[in-house]
Amino acid sequence: MAEAVRHDKTARQLRLLSDALDSGRLGPVRRLVNTLSPAEIGNLLESLPPGKRTVVWGLVDPEDDGEVLVHVGDEVREGLIADMDPDELVAAVEDLDIDDLADLVEDLPDTVIDEVLKSMDRENRERLEQVLSYDEDSAGRLMNPDVVTVRADTTVDVVLRYLRLRGELPEHTDHIYVVSKRHQYLGRIALQALLTHEPSTPINRLLDDEQPAIGVDETSEMVARQFSDHDWISAPVVDDNNILLGRITIDDVVDIIREQAEHQALGAAGLDEDEDLFSPVRRAFRNRLIWLGVNLGTAFLAASVVDRFAGSIEKLAALAVLMPIVAGMGGNAGTQVLALMVRGLALGQIGASNVPTLVWKEVRVALINGLALGAVLGIVVLLWFRSPALAAVIAIALTCNLCFAALGGVFVPVTLKRMGFDPALAGGVILTTITDVMGFLTFLGLATLVLLR
Amino acid sequence: MAEAVRHDKTARQLRLLSDALDSGRLGPVRRLVNTLSPAEIGNLLESLPPGKRTVVWGLVDPEDDGEVLVHVGDEVREGLIADMDPDELVAAVEDLDIDDLADLVEDLPDTVIDEVLKSMDRENRERLEQVLSYDEDSAGRLMNPDVVTVRADTTVDVVLRYLRLRGELPEHTDHIYVVSKRHQYLGRIALQALLTHEPSTPINRLLDDEQPAIGVDETSEMVARQFSDHDWISAPVVDDNNILLGRITIDDVVDIIREQAEHQALGAAGLDEDEDLFSPVRRAFRNRLIWLGVNLGTAFLAASVVDRFAGSIEKLAALAVLMPIVAGMGGNAGTQVLALMVRGLALGQIGASNVPTLVWKEVRVALINGLALGAVLGIVVLLWFRSPALAAVIAIALTCNLCFAALGGVFVPVTLKRMGFDPALAGGVILTTITDVMGFLTFLGLATLVLLR
Repeated sequence: MAEAVRHDKTARQLRLLSDALDSGRLGPVRRLVNTLSPAEIGNLLESLPPGKRTVVWGLVDPEDDGEVLVHVGDEVREGLIADMDPDELVAAVEDLDIDDLADLVEDLPDTVIDEVLKSMDRENRERLEQVLSYDEDSAGRLMNPDVVTVRADTTVDVVLRYLRLRGELPEHTDHIYVVSKRHQYLGRIALQALLTHEPSTPINRLLDDEQPAIGVDETSEMVARQFSDHDWISAPVVDDNNILLGRITIDDVVDIIREQAEHQALGAAGLDEDEDLFSPVRRAFRNRLIWLGVNLGTAFLAASVVDRFAGSIEKLAALAVLMPIVAGMGGNAGTQVLALMVRGLALGQIGASNVPTLVWKEVRVALINGLALGAVLGIVVLLWFRSPALAAVIAIALTCNLCFAALGGVFVPVTLKRMGFDPALAGGVILTTITDVMGFLTFLGLATLVLLR
Repeated sequence: MAEAVRHDKTARQLRLLSDALDSGRLGPVRRLVNTLSPAEIGNLLESLPPGKRTVVWGLVDPEDDGEVLVHVGDEVREGLIADMDPDELVAAVEDLDIDDLADLVEDLPDTVIDEVLKSMDRENRERLEQVLSYDEDSAGRLMNPDVVTVRADTTVDVVLRYLRLRGELPEHTDHIYVVSKRHQYLGRIALQALLTHEPSTPINRLLDDEQPAIGVDETSEMVARQFSDHDWISAPVVDDNNILLGRITIDDVVDIIREQAEHQALGAAGLDEDEDLFSPVRRAFRNRLIWLGVNLGTAFLAASVVDRFAGSIEKLAALAVLMPIVAGMGGNAGTQVLALMVRGLALGQIGASNVPTLVWKEVRVALINGLALGAVLGIVVLLWFRSPALAAVIAIALTCNLCFAALGGVFVPVTLKRMGFDPALAGGVILTTITDVMGFLTFLGLATLVLLR
């Protein structure tokens, strides 16, 4: 129910827009589009098939073009950029913040980059080059070099006069930073503190030096973690010598958190997060083929196990009927353990010290589930095939496979993480290979031993 | 590699802590714990088995107790609360912000709630009651009623004097709000603007009335979407008459986004997001049993399809060897489509207007994948079983099942969403039931028709 109410503004706009587009009335489309924020326009463009997308893109206010480009996925972005001529592109991106521009740069044609660099003053050009020199996935790439700094040996009054002189502050400024003569980071002053203290108050007294600065090489994942652990709105970024380089703001961190979640959800299905709803068929095919190919390989492995027992199956077709149940239930149970482990690993909650306790807990859960579900399964099999021996075999095989699932569910992600792989991506396919192979092996093997000799 | 470097501060602390706990030296543990933020302490407590958790919880600075309780999952929270006596609990929670207190209230014993209510002044008690009167999943529950308001007919100077008089502002205040005499929301003034404009500037001139206020009944999902679409740090909350009720800040929104992502990742495996790593075995068993039971039911359905072809399998055991491949590949391909659709639906990118285009695209991708993978599969089967007819049958069955997977991948989540269910939760099990049943049916059915008569 709640879901229905929640039905997004975007979905409603999409319907309105789609109707207007179909009727060819571009005036209403333009008006509708330009009531939206750049992020919303980006979302809308991603929801349109390429033909309509081009039409709507042409109607977006040129002032928003740059921000919209920042907010769409890589594939859609390439398409939009291909629709623009170089002059439009230069105009669209030259006023972007340094961090946003750094995001776009690799998708822009070289001629456009040259033009944009030429149009920037030397300071900004150097800043852009600096930001681009950091790893794509690092704090350096996320930061905006535009920060407001003051010295410690002054008063609120002086700072207020300086700020009035300076005029507008960078977006989402909630603190100004206090630096030494050599531009080393000393601490921060909340704008709030400037507003609530008497003009004569020395800046020193308002200095908050408790929030640690972020190192420029920290990964974006670590940055996001710290922001949400400490409820930060912004944080200073420093180099190894504690020299203040820039500032990261929560809005970029929110984007990272969303991207990580998407990456995990799509990655678990073997998809690139850049694949969008209307990726060209050729590209979508290529994106998915590798994953399906890997899965085909593991399916052959499981099939070869079944093949070993072809003789048993010929004698008792019921084995073929029942074997997918044992394998599939192992996969489901293992996936539950895997999901818990992936979350725990992402939160840094799992280490050598608690893995044994975890294994012991999961094996106990598997044993109890095996008894409960095995009993149900055994009774159904007994009624279906009238064979107490077959019923006992499948109940035992199920319990064994749930235990293998528990062990795999714990050790597969821990091992992947230790080897430097993302457990959320490769974990599922490895785990279900284990539960398929072990499920077929225990069930068909036990059945052959007990029933067919 | 990057993953290895990323290895969290938390994991390192966990090791240190675990060593110290094992050696029984509680002094170092206490010192270590109290260098952490409440969110980090919460994370650490969740990573400890219940016995050690109780020990560490006893070492946390009582001042942090309340904030830590806010930051842990429901199950862990219940355990921690059970470890505290009423006086400790009252002391821990009475200084929390209203929105945080509202979060905790339902987990607290009634006697503690009474004590806390008694210790609050009337204004705060009324505010808490108001916040609690809203839906758990609504803007009203997320907001903090503590806001700074001014009138429009004044100057920067007067506001500055008022703020200095008022002293500290609520956390994360980046704007103050302008209201009418009847406390209706008129717009907002950035703290930045107060700092960068001359004292004589009329407040009217700094008023930003472009950001829409959030309705108190909006869902937390909509609130989160708006924050990330518009890069907000905070937003005002109003009732139906535009009366200003409170303010939502980005830190709470970040928590919602994280929770949604967790809910989705764990929910897809049929897990409650409240299940933590060390949930008691009994509870973990219950949490998972329902899901596994549902999957057992669908497995019976698929098995009953196979049972129809028991005669064919007795004649040709190769069918039993190969059938899991066709079913499993359909499941993998369908899961890819489902993952894309779930993201699109969450972003509001999918409506009646683009579903046909999506279906057509996905069916084409399925056909091409079917041809490519079917060819590989056919060749392997030909070499393995020396039967061109069997190779042709499995290639055709695979292609058909990939098409069913594409149709199911699009229509299952769209239908679930339309019926008011969360497509991320139930989508997977329904989809794999379809691909299992259709996979067995087309492969075994075709094989029976072509090979065995």
